[in-house]
Amino acid sequence: MKITVVKNILEANERIAEENRKLFQEKRVTVINLMSSPGAGKTSLLERTIDTLGNRIRIGVVEGDIESTQDAERISKKGVQVVQINTGGACHLDGNMVRDALPAFDLSKLDLLVVENVGNLVCPAEFNMGEDHKVMILSVAEGDDKPAKYPLMFHESSVLLINKVDLLPYVDCSVERIKEVSLGIHPKLEVFEISCKTGEGIDRWSEWLLSQIQPQG
Amino acid sequence: MKITVVKNILEANERIAEENRKLFQEKRVTVINLMSSPGAGKTSLLERTIDTLGNRIRIGVVEGDIESTQDAERISKKGVQVVQINTGGACHLDGNMVRDALPAFDLSKLDLLVVENVGNLVCPAEFNMGEDHKVMILSVAEGDDKPAKYPLMFHESSVLLINKVDLLPYVDCSVERIKEVSLGIHPKLEVFEISCKTGEGIDRWSEWLLSQIQPQG
Repeated sequence: MKITVVKNILEANERIAEENRKLFQEKRVTVINLMSSPGAGKTSLLERTIDTLGNRIRIGVVEGDIESTQDAERISKKGVQVVQINTGGACHLDGNMVRDALPAFDLSKLDLLVVENVGNLVCPAEFNMGEDHKVMILSVAEGDDKPAKYPLMFHESSVLLINKVDLLPYVDCSVERIKEVSLGIHPKLEVFEISCKTGEGIDRWSEWLLSQIQPQG
Repeated sequence: MKITVVKNILEANERIAEENRKLFQEKRVTVINLMSSPGAGKTSLLERTIDTLGNRIRIGVVEGDIESTQDAERISKKGVQVVQINTGGACHLDGNMVRDALPAFDLSKLDLLVVENVGNLVCPAEFNMGEDHKVMILSVAEGDDKPAKYPLMFHESSVLLINKVDLLPYVDCSVERIKEVSLGIHPKLEVFEISCKTGEGIDRWSEWLLSQIQPQG
């Protein structure tokens, strides 16, 4: 019974995600679903990315949080359009929540829409929203055992950003171990080592992101 | 429809949790449900706690992970009895999973059972397992905006352990801000600042834990 319900929820979500995907393709907007544990650096990455690419492409942001508008306020200061979704308890965003946020944007005037998911290394990986790519962040402060313990997100993501490498001298974490286990789970995973604090690696991530932008018709 | 299903799942869990609670009281074992984001330091806290209290009280551990037995192997080295639950995808432990793990223990020979939940700052807070106390860890690397963004766990927990204070010189995080917002959500929350790396604060946490142990009949 419970399994049937969950399957029905996932199937209903998949239909909405597919509708979103068609709309995104029609409007030629690249959509990124950004996921991580709480505090791994999703909003900081967005700030750095907007600083780097904001004068070359047109960026919109959807902020997903259980409560509060703190992240939307941070992003708003960067001068890009941002919509906050408060899930009111739900542990992830889904296709329907993202669809409900879309009327706030003129999608034909966007090149890139980044959806910052709720901070959670488990549930968000199960729900598509019609995105082109799932991108995940792992902070080195979380430790190198995380790929083996939370494999689904590593399996579903196109890109793994290993963040806070500036903390490596002070934490017990091997970047090589993260890469080895992650690539064992998902051999085509693109991996970038970054620090949103120092800016290290942001250029390489931004180049990858630019390569995903669709030429306007 | 969806809401009804979720309510039924929570009610069914509550019944099992209540049965667990009766069993724990009968056996005079204190049960702690230990929760945090991935990588905040749950297993490291357990190692430190066993080192500090292991020769004074009899401790058992249930390790909850989606996959892998890495944490159970770490705890096993400390010489206490440990059972690993692999949830196979589920983002939290519930009363039923904990009940299924109990036959592995002789509860009448335990003073303390610590259940390490799946790393997740959202979902575990919704499911009781018959515990005496929920205890949560927040790492300073996660940032001081977390209480406002994930309030339920702070509301449900008896104790907040602010971990990795050794990293404070290198991260942008105010312990005072964490305390202020957490206590706004839950004024009776006990707060300890700790470092599982240096051992700072472990003595005060251990004293609190000892004060919760029930005298054997």
